[in-house]
Amino acid sequence: MTRQLVKLALASVFCCGVVSAQTAKDAAREWRVAHEEQILREFTGLLSIPNVAEDKANIRRNADTLVGMLEQRHVAAKLLVAGDANPVVYGEIKTAGAKRTIVFYAHYDGQPVTPEEWDSKAPFTPVTRAVNGETRIYARSSSDDKAAILAQLTALDALQAAHIPLRANLRFVWEGEEEAGSTHFREVLEKYHDELGGDVWLICDGPVDQSGRQSVVFGARGVTHLEITVYGPNRELHSGHYGNWAPNPAMMLAQLLAGMKDATGRVLIPHFYDGVVPLSALEKQAIADAPRNEEKLRVEFGLGHTDGGGQSLLAVLNEPTLNIDGFSSARTGSKANNVIPSTATADIDLRLVKGLDWKTQQQRVVDYIAAQGYFVTGTAPDKATLVEHPRVAFVKLDAVGYNAVRTPMDLPISQEVIAVVESARGAVVKLPTMGGSVPLEMIEQTLRTPTITVPIANYDNNQHSANENIRLQNLWDGIETMAALETME
Amino acid sequence: MTRQLVKLALASVFCCGVVSAQTAKDAAREWRVAHEEQILREFTGLLSIPNVAEDKANIRRNADTLVGMLEQRHVAAKLLVAGDANPVVYGEIKTAGAKRTIVFYAHYDGQPVTPEEWDSKAPFTPVTRAVNGETRIYARSSSDDKAAILAQLTALDALQAAHIPLRANLRFVWEGEEEAGSTHFREVLEKYHDELGGDVWLICDGPVDQSGRQSVVFGARGVTHLEITVYGPNRELHSGHYGNWAPNPAMMLAQLLAGMKDATGRVLIPHFYDGVVPLSALEKQAIADAPRNEEKLRVEFGLGHTDGGGQSLLAVLNEPTLNIDGFSSARTGSKANNVIPSTATADIDLRLVKGLDWKTQQQRVVDYIAAQGYFVTGTAPDKATLVEHPRVAFVKLDAVGYNAVRTPMDLPISQEVIAVVESARGAVVKLPTMGGSVPLEMIEQTLRTPTITVPIANYDNNQHSANENIRLQNLWDGIETMAALETME
Repeated sequence: MTRQLVKLALASVFCCGVVSAQTAKDAAREWRVAHEEQILREFTGLLSIPNVAEDKANIRRNADTLVGMLEQRHVAAKLLVAGDANPVVYGEIKTAGAKRTIVFYAHYDGQPVTPEEWDSKAPFTPVTRAVNGETRIYARSSSDDKAAILAQLTALDALQAAHIPLRANLRFVWEGEEEAGSTHFREVLEKYHDELGGDVWLICDGPVDQSGRQSVVFGARGVTHLEITVYGPNRELHSGHYGNWAPNPAMMLAQLLAGMKDATGRVLIPHFYDGVVPLSALEKQAIADAPRNEEKLRVEFGLGHTDGGGQSLLAVLNEPTLNIDGFSSARTGSKANNVIPSTATADIDLRLVKGLDWKTQQQRVVDYIAAQGYFVTGTAPDKATLVEHPRVAFVKLDAVGYNAVRTPMDLPISQEVIAVVESARGAVVKLPTMGGSVPLEMIEQTLRTPTITVPIANYDNNQHSANENIRLQNLWDGIETMAALETME
Repeated sequence: MTRQLVKLALASVFCCGVVSAQTAKDAAREWRVAHEEQILREFTGLLSIPNVAEDKANIRRNADTLVGMLEQRHVAAKLLVAGDANPVVYGEIKTAGAKRTIVFYAHYDGQPVTPEEWDSKAPFTPVTRAVNGETRIYARSSSDDKAAILAQLTALDALQAAHIPLRANLRFVWEGEEEAGSTHFREVLEKYHDELGGDVWLICDGPVDQSGRQSVVFGARGVTHLEITVYGPNRELHSGHYGNWAPNPAMMLAQLLAGMKDATGRVLIPHFYDGVVPLSALEKQAIADAPRNEEKLRVEFGLGHTDGGGQSLLAVLNEPTLNIDGFSSARTGSKANNVIPSTATADIDLRLVKGLDWKTQQQRVVDYIAAQGYFVTGTAPDKATLVEHPRVAFVKLDAVGYNAVRTPMDLPISQEVIAVVESARGAVVKLPTMGGSVPLEMIEQTLRTPTITVPIANYDNNQHSANENIRLQNLWDGIETMAALETME
């Protein structure tokens, strides 16, 4: 085909894809309205199965349940297992005459939970509550990321009921350890290379724009993690008898961390921003076109100031981060004692953007700590080590991490996904990079498949925290979006 | 009497006091050796009664038990109660012909406990363990401060059994909320002014010198406490979706705290050292004469460096402190999530030396926080406050605190106590100020009575922490020291 003919062919696909998406969307809505109770029963049943990646027994229950849910829809399903990996749930629909294979990615594991922090005290007992006139379902993974799985499955029900034919091959890939860093996902991708390839991976994870508008996202930040522990006395000491003499590890760690950022949140660690690939003109334009939600969010979150030196939220998501996930040393509040603590620990996550390597980024932090006079060790130091070096930092580097990905917005498949989603949801917010992380890099590397993210969750879903929730309307909208995408040509 | 006659009379008291102390000490040892099992039964019984000041029911059980223990020794006993105060246990022995009244102070309440941090998981179930050939008893308040109470009582048993007559009136004053800041002690002192006066208060609290040598201490640092909370988003946010934009309260607090001290531990808060009364020549000499335990302690505690810019431990105890008792923000370790925490909190204790006022010292910290751009509030801020001010710090100032005291070492009573203790324990370490705090100031102010501290506990007793313990030999020695002091003229 000449270039001209290709363009015409694409235009025809576009046209039919969009029309079909509209039909699929309507069918999804009709089905949903008639079956809300049944849909929620299936959803809350799935949410009731604990899904922290470490909890192997329950992870297996999730996986088996999901295979059952696929088979119930006549989707050929199996578990993909590699080494110690939590199983990946895999489903496949082969469509006669299909020219393309569309892969729907989601993950069925969730963040660790601290039940006492939840209003319900029970993260795996879904609770439905009306908040400000909106119904939400509260449970771990209600948004992140079981909602996406349920939306994909329910969309199939709707299409089947309405006898709307599929046109592409569909593959469903639901990971079981995304929140634990996707430790073995590369292994799975390599081992099941043939099952997992496709023309595009649609990553159904993360929240839509804070304005409530649907977003389509062309990349995600990479992520890795490290934990720093510094040492005072090897047992807590009375702060009177040793105060002014025995060094306080909480103060040492405060001083170490304080130097990592300036007052605007800019990271001061040398070379931290070296290698960042700048945004293209199209990407910059997409950010400029996106809604500005900062003032709404500032008030909603109760923030007196924001970091980023006045840049927009969407702009600073295209820069790497250094974030303190938590800090602990001895006890505070009513549990506090007048002691010099023995240790102080901070967990830090590093988000990466296009052009940065996660191991290099970890090393930059390590180098900074060493430059502050610390002997840095990768294992818990013994007493001899502590006595020998003026300052010792035990830096536990996550052995896993992944880099950022940005799929060009001007690829034909990029433009087509935008058109299909817009037919179902109206004008979408197009983002070069989402702030969160999904293991897109390894998909690109192992399968040579571009990835495009189509999230469905509300932005205020408390994902990664207590009281995670999904706004019911987002789940309903998500079903329609998935139905449109499942009928892509 | 002329000045000359007074001196002669004092010399004679000295001589007899010392001879009697020697006899008392021998009697105490003889009694103890013959009754170790009985003594330990009584001690562990007392340690088995939980004694956190907030636990009113158990505090009362302690107090009633102690009254019983005094009455068993034919000591007139009662509870002194003022307002909401935990009762002060009071015992009195009137001695015919006595010229002096000696008051023995201790406290029966203990620091709060976190049972899971204890090896035994049960701070109120005393456990006897041999550690490096030394027997120790582990329980909350085993050292701080029920050991002193038991030593005072057992010394009475020994003196009564050996028919050694007392020569002074003795008073026993055992407080029930010292570890909670002696909130109501001033009220008790004022209300029971007549019962509580005397020629000297002997404060039996704290540890002896780290060399193991008995110490006599002429003052204690004052103390107060405050808690700082700073605010990020009003709920935890996903660190990917909001990282670089929503401020991180752990980083804010780290930066705030980091500026409070230099790398040697010197406090940088303006005016922090203003008003400190310098040590006298005699006090400086006492410190110069004291053992230097720093290197031993540095290695024992596993410290790679120490604060204080090379000064001796005993010297820096005569300076005020700012100590982080604990720091918390979200979670660390296996509980950590990739979030921007919502709040960060640090508890801080301030130790004070002669010349400083605790309220002024608190205010200096508050002024410093305000000078860093924080709106400082004394109550938990509402959302409007958080949105209105770029940075908000909720600083909870303890409503209680007390100042430091230093009794001059050259008073006759000071010299006499030194002589009596030395007759029982050999050459003592004389310290102008102990590092820890006891509410001496209010005793001086309300009763016009000098205070001298005679501790008995081992320095490595983990007081204020998990696994608090007393070295059994320290308890035995303490009984002898108390017997000598109880027979002072």
